Amino acid sequence: MTVTLTLADGSEGTGYTYTGGKGGYAIGAMIVHDLAPFLKGRDATEIDALYDGMLWHIHYVGRGGIASFAISALDIALWDLQGRRIGRSLWEMAGGAGKTTKAYRGGIDLNFPLDQLQASIDSYLAAGFNAVKIKVGKDDLAEDVARVKAIRERIGPHTPFMVDANYALDIHRAIEAAKAFAPYDLLWFEEPIIPDDYQGYAAIAEATGMPLAMGENLHVIEEFEHAFAWSKLSYIQPDASNCGGITGWLRVAELSRKAGIPVCSHGMQELHVSLVAGQPNAGWVEAHSFDIDQYTNRPLRLQDGLAVAPDEPGIGVSFDWRKLLPFEEKV
Amino acid sequence: MTVTLTLADGSEGTGYTYTGGKGGYAIGAMIVHDLAPFLKGRDATEIDALYDGMLWHIHYVGRGGIASFAISALDIALWDLQGRRIGRSLWEMAGGAGKTTKAYRGGIDLNFPLDQLQASIDSYLAAGFNAVKIKVGKDDLAEDVARVKAIRERIGPHTPFMVDANYALDIHRAIEAAKAFAPYDLLWFEEPIIPDDYQGYAAIAEATGMPLAMGENLHVIEEFEHAFAWSKLSYIQPDASNCGGITGWLRVAELSRKAGIPVCSHGMQELHVSLVAGQPNAGWVEAHSFDIDQYTNRPLRLQDGLAVAPDEPGIGVSFDWRKLLPFEEKV
Ligand SMILES: [Mg+2]
Ligand SMILES: [Mg+2]
Repeated sequence: MTVTLTLADGSEGTGYTYTGGKGGYAIGAMIVHDLAPFLKGRDATEIDALYDGMLWHIHYVGRGGIASFAISALDIALWDLQGRRIGRSLWEMAGGAGKTTKAYRGGIDLNFPLDQLQASIDSYLAAGFNAVKIKVGKDDLAEDVARVKAIRERIGPHTPFMVDANYALDIHRAIEAAKAFAPYDLLWFEEPIIPDDYQGYAAIAEATGMPLAMGENLHVIEEFEHAFAWSKLSYIQPDASNCGGITGWLRVAELSRKAGIPVCSHGMQELHVSLVAGQPNAGWVEAHSFDIDQYTNRPLRLQDGLAVAPDEPGIGVSFDWRKLLPFEEKV
Repeated sequence: MTVTLTLADGSEGTGYTYTGGKGGYAIGAMIVHDLAPFLKGRDATEIDALYDGMLWHIHYVGRGGIASFAISALDIALWDLQGRRIGRSLWEMAGGAGKTTKAYRGGIDLNFPLDQLQASIDSYLAAGFNAVKIKVGKDDLAEDVARVKAIRERIGPHTPFMVDANYALDIHRAIEAAKAFAPYDLLWFEEPIIPDDYQGYAAIAEATGMPLAMGENLHVIEEFEHAFAWSKLSYIQPDASNCGGITGWLRVAELSRKAGIPVCSHGMQELHVSLVAGQPNAGWVEAHSFDIDQYTNRPLRLQDGLAVAPDEPGIGVSFDWRKLLPFEEKV
């Protein structure tokens, strides 16, 4: 879902969000019927005020879900406008701490047979990534453990390695899994349980000492506040496509510094590379398997295993509209 | 937003939800593009499984917000079908503890001058209500206190009386307000602060002893779990139009019994009368100022101050479609 805002002077900024295939029409409807009318005629340079204004405008039907995706797309468009107007890149606007950041590659590989899983990991390393993540959460923990063991052996002891359960487990199973994964030196165990169970995360961390990560399914700042307060996370992973765009993401990053936790990201690597790189407490950018690089004008760039943020003014992500044309549906 | 489901045998059930004027198109889009395709061809009698299935189907863009409103409308339609099929009323299906319940009348009256506020309270009592609620949350607490005092004096010491701040305050101001309201024997202080600050509610309850109520802005069961666990509420107020319909409301009611808290409701009195009446731990039905009674075939009925649930099979709410015709917009 892309959205292009045009100012009275004709200047344009483009933002976007994405889903796993559901909710796109609802996001479009909220942008067209609720948020665009709110934005029309307002000062595009007042991004923070517009962000709070959008949240309040739809508050009764908001506080997460579709509203967060819709606001994200519009907020990203506002930042694109801002960067183009003042001639600054996103990594500079978003903190400016650096223009490169650690990155890792993951995929939707829970159902890959082991040889396919190994081949995909090999391909990540061949592409220049030096850190990898696999899915876990099989019905049989022994199978997860065997896969984790096999990948750790394949990549050697020094390659950073994470696992992600996409909240497939309950607390009890998560604790068992974390203990079983202990010998394989994981950088983090991502979303072992549902994101809503903030204190459940703390219980797992306390019982096992395993570093935990989550955030891709938190959509409003209050949810992140709960996670920082109660979940004993080692990493936080906000996603600018669903936590309120760049403004929402930067507010989470500010909380992460207060909490002393590195800030990472989920998906949308072409944009997050700039956001993460700009932070003094930068963690890791997730490079996801979604093939957005085929449709943008600048695929993610790696240099010595680090992801490099774009220098062009604006968000640094622009689309090759001809390639998107076959999928076009105006709302 | 009404939604009518038709089964293969031609039988029909109608559900609905509402908002304050925003988000309707997004709710419609999610129903048409995401949830209706999911429901099509499935067994309409498996309401619990369909409910969980809908939640999971849109989970990445869900967990509250628009998704909760959309699921609510569809779930209510499924209950309407169920009741019509088995020939049972909603109060029977929803627990059957009783068919009448305590009720109170409130309105959007924060900006009414005092004489208008008093006149509206008089009109509630004249209409047969024997409990009333007013809005608080003026910038100047003294003004709130004067209004609370004036209404308490007007209705006498024995009429149950609540106040509702629609989360206009912060914790500090809420504690001051609760202390200042103490002489006026309030049944509850509703939504003093943002619903997301679960532990803030507990802080207010502990500091003041004031009974607190909330729930109209909680949309998923996990949020209610947090409220029960941490907020030290005296009443819970789920709204079937935004917490997952009748299935969602009943799941909250079940938690309320475990927590030992009376279950109340927000808005949608024509439907909630049946849900609240059916509970062994029934609290109070809110009769809101929204004029839905003009468009349904059975306005809310009071008998000796109690609200009386309809006996007709199904949800007991049907619309006078001719009256809705001027507002019709098919999605
Ligand atoms: Mg993940
Ligand atoms: Mg209220």
